[in-house]
Amino acid sequence: MNQLRFAVIGGDQRQSYLYKLLGEQGFPVTACGVPGIEYEDEEMKAVVAGSDVVILPLPVTQDGRTVNAPFAKTPIYLSDVFNSSVTDQLFLGGKVNKKLQASLRDRSITLLDYFQREELSILNAIPTAEGAIAIAMDETNRTIYGSRILVTGFGRLSKLLAPRFAALGADLHIAARKQADLAFIEAYGYTPHHFNTLKNIAGGFDILINTVPAMVFPAEVISKLREDAVLIDLASAPGGVDFEAAWKKGVTAVQALSLPGKVAPYSAAQIILSTIFNIIKEEKT
Amino acid sequence: MNQLRFAVIGGDQRQSYLYKLLGEQGFPVTACGVPGIEYEDEEMKAVVAGSDVVILPLPVTQDGRTVNAPFAKTPIYLSDVFNSSVTDQLFLGGKVNKKLQASLRDRSITLLDYFQREELSILNAIPTAEGAIAIAMDETNRTIYGSRILVTGFGRLSKLLAPRFAALGADLHIAARKQADLAFIEAYGYTPHHFNTLKNIAGGFDILINTVPAMVFPAEVISKLREDAVLIDLASAPGGVDFEAAWKKGVTAVQALSLPGKVAPYSAAQIILSTIFNIIKEEKT
Amino acid sequence: MNQLRFAVIGGDQRQSYLYKLLGEQGFPVTACGVPGIEYEDEEMKAVVAGSDVVILPLPVTQDGRTVNAPFAKTPIYLSDVFNSSVTDQLFLGGKVNKKLQASLRDRSITLLDYFQREELSILNAIPTAEGAIAIAMDETNRTIYGSRILVTGFGRLSKLLAPRFAALGADLHIAARKQADLAFIEAYGYTPHHFNTLKNIAGGFDILINTVPAMVFPAEVISKLREDAVLIDLASAPGGVDFEAAWKKGVTAVQALSLPGKVAPYSAAQIILSTIFNIIKEEKT
Amino acid sequence: MNQLRFAVIGGDQRQSYLYKLLGEQGFPVTACGVPGIEYEDEEMKAVVAGSDVVILPLPVTQDGRTVNAPFAKTPIYLSDVFNSSVTDQLFLGGKVNKKLQASLRDRSITLLDYFQREELSILNAIPTAEGAIAIAMDETNRTIYGSRILVTGFGRLSKLLAPRFAALGADLHIAARKQADLAFIEAYGYTPHHFNTLKNIAGGFDILINTVPAMVFPAEVISKLREDAVLIDLASAPGGVDFEAAWKKGVTAVQALSLPGKVAPYSAAQIILSTIFNIIKEEKT
Repeated sequence: MNQLRFAVIGGDQRQSYLYKLLGEQGFPVTACGVPGIEYEDEEMKAVVAGSDVVILPLPVTQDGRTVNAPFAKTPIYLSDVFNSSVTDQLFLGGKVNKKLQASLRDRSITLLDYFQREELSILNAIPTAEGAIAIAMDETNRTIYGSRILVTGFGRLSKLLAPRFAALGADLHIAARKQADLAFIEAYGYTPHHFNTLKNIAGGFDILINTVPAMVFPAEVISKLREDAVLIDLASAPGGVDFEAAWKKGVTAVQALSLPGKVAPYSAAQIILSTIFNIIKEEKT
Repeated sequence: MNQLRFAVIGGDQRQSYLYKLLGEQGFPVTACGVPGIEYEDEEMKAVVAGSDVVILPLPVTQDGRTVNAPFAKTPIYLSDVFNSSVTDQLFLGGKVNKKLQASLRDRSITLLDYFQREELSILNAIPTAEGAIAIAMDETNRTIYGSRILVTGFGRLSKLLAPRFAALGADLHIAARKQADLAFIEAYGYTPHHFNTLKNIAGGFDILINTVPAMVFPAEVISKLREDAVLIDLASAPGGVDFEAAWKKGVTAVQALSLPGKVAPYSAAQIILSTIFNIIKEEKT
Repeated sequence: MNQLRFAVIGGDQRQSYLYKLLGEQGFPVTACGVPGIEYEDEEMKAVVAGSDVVILPLPVTQDGRTVNAPFAKTPIYLSDVFNSSVTDQLFLGGKVNKKLQASLRDRSITLLDYFQREELSILNAIPTAEGAIAIAMDETNRTIYGSRILVTGFGRLSKLLAPRFAALGADLHIAARKQADLAFIEAYGYTPHHFNTLKNIAGGFDILINTVPAMVFPAEVISKLREDAVLIDLASAPGGVDFEAAWKKGVTAVQALSLPGKVAPYSAAQIILSTIFNIIKEEKT
Repeated sequence: MNQLRFAVIGGDQRQSYLYKLLGEQGFPVTACGVPGIEYEDEEMKAVVAGSDVVILPLPVTQDGRTVNAPFAKTPIYLSDVFNSSVTDQLFLGGKVNKKLQASLRDRSITLLDYFQREELSILNAIPTAEGAIAIAMDETNRTIYGSRILVTGFGRLSKLLAPRFAALGADLHIAARKQADLAFIEAYGYTPHHFNTLKNIAGGFDILINTVPAMVFPAEVISKLREDAVLIDLASAPGGVDFEAAWKKGVTAVQALSLPGKVAPYSAAQIILSTIFNIIKEEKT
């Protein structure tokens, strides 16, 4: 793998760190449209053509036509990128459009989505958990220590949030649906609640954190919250909180999206890179 | 549920504690062949017939003919138990024979297996983990603190063992196969290893604990262990260790089976009872 | 103690929460110059005279003449407060001037300093630790998880910071001087360093946190830091960091003072109140 | 320090491990009366005379005349040992008799007590804590998880016991006397109790562990314990438990002395050796 040449195209600070990390690990690497890395517009095609692996940003594109590259001097068209492709090249990007992927496959161009990888989701739960802790600390006038906290859902994120809040001294409760999850919550030493009881128990918490991508906190549940409660929605958009109801009730409600790139772009880049290495190992063998 | 009458038949100390716990919670409960609880042989049929729920031991039977009741004064025949059955009665036992279950179903007798329930397996991982810690403490001449420990597998048991060994100050490594498991192991702060590398890394550990019901430690791996290493097999029989190879090599190897009933019968009874209540709630609604 | 009447004078949000907490616990309580609590200027004397315990803010005063009361409509003079004093009354304040205290004693007025109490310092270390974690999260582009962190000193604050950073997945190192402290650091599972070695090891850390009120990070040590390191000084003013040297070097250095009142005024109020109750118990018996 | 020649005399398995560890670290080392290490009786004087540092066991002697050497072929007299002393030699032992030490000083022989060193006491608290956990697991029929545990005292041992029991899922309470200790106990997340209340609260616990070398559990407190409670006395003899009262009451009471050498002789040897190195560094500079 050491002979591979990398190109990094577009994106935010995470792409800058990816470029830097690849260089530090001894890989030949070039970049285009990456914040803080000098380049000339006309270099893009050479950058792509001269590499074995092209790393596109997360998400690859916002508009469907250009690479998501807010720091590029001029727009970088997806069509230009893929037209510069050479044989045996691997394109990697985050949140890849399935149609695009299929049409490229017809042209024998491989574009894989690192954001689909389970190990990335799991490791990304670390910066997300830390971001949630920082929000909880900022938005409340009390310490996490001694706070009564309810986390809804017991998936990847919740499993990494829970030991952190518990170690900070919170009285941690977790709501789940499956008997096995409830047993695990109990075995880990947290207080389990069945989702059915949410309406009845919601009024007892200082901080509530949703991790479930479904309407877990409708107006009916919001109406039960204490007025000084803080509600943090970590579920991907559209999330699981009726924010209008929260606003009317006077409850502080925060929708926290894409935390890894915001709170820890360096670590987010490390996680993407380690996932990319896993993909390459599987593809190249 | 408060009106239910319980009968407890056979078994070991766990059944005694079940009897006691049911009584403490206000349920009418009778017993037969349970250690420490007085009864007359001829009462068995009345005990069964006078109850709504009959709790048989774990395992229900050793020989296929009699209830597993080492403390009973005379053998309690399964046939006698089920012939004493009355309408709308629920029989519950551990490790139930599928054929027996099917034949009873034909006679409209319901016999359910609490040992099949996932919540029981998860909660049972707590006493199993504690038992494994006690064995590791007893069998080594060093502290868990500072010991290099390898756990193979990342299932229920491993997930509860890991935080305990880590909190005791061990340098904890976990071997798994799936990329997602490896990512979780890393995210939890332990050192992940792919199962493929087991042969290469096995020589670096003071304590090795297998949780996988497959031949994870064949002679070839055993040969790599340090002579003062301690190897604990927690996988259900036949386990995952070549004990003969360990014996020849001079390595201390312990096969630890059915720890919950041995190290913490009271807690094991609590776990069974909580599982039984879950079953009853589902059956009676 | 339930018959005691309280007066709360001046201060910031912590005093508001003190007022609220006292009311919730059933004590008669009045206030003057406390944010959010209505009062008339001319009420001050009656407020003081009508109470058994008068709670002054932390610090009691900034200028030596008036109560520290930034939310008061008009200045509240210390002389007016103490001239309103009645027999058998207890005045409590934070960071009390020793001379003032002595001169009051001559007038048979008791003014005690709750900020001198060791239990307050210990409990205040909780919001301080949380504040430091929030700063570390905000100021770095990486996760606490996987960061190499050095804490200097092993006093009250350090003892509560350490388990929190460790639980978040940091590689935690602590510098101390005493052999006993170094042994405890090791026994708790952190990496100990002797203060003497600070200059040699400082370059290896992502985050450095000083808790020692002495010049621990002079220019000579600062010069060894990585440029992307973050240095947080939690020691009380003047602190232990040469901030000018840090600024020249380009290292992010943060002086974090009085965190409890800033990050968690509600909890800070609870801590002051619990300390006040301890003082009252000792004084009144 | 690398040129130092060591002699190890008498003792139990810890001395064998000390001998082995010194050899592994490249020091010239000889032994006499150490279990498992071959030697001839007549070699003793040469062993002592040919070394720079002589390591005597813990305790140095049981009878005041001979070295504590249960595995020696013939008694090793202290007088013979010290008469073999050469110039500039350092003798180290555990629980050294003050009179002996003084009389040797008159002869210009230096005998230091490594058992007096605070770092040894702190690090020894690790194997002691693990031993206490093993006893608690063995003596109860329930899991540590979910057990209500009271630890009396908040010294070195208690500080290392507490996080371990808490991590195992116990509901951990600690009794102390000083306000500062009570605040720390609370800040660490355990439940604090004042010693005065011991009699009132003792009946609520499954496991009680004494670390205070004073009569903390007299008959009066014992009488309040539940009959299935387990009481472990870790305080050095005579301990803090009225064992006769416990026996009469039917409570399981265990006096656990000198756990490090019993449960983890290898780690105990490492701790002694690291302490000896600290002493040598101080003496030789």
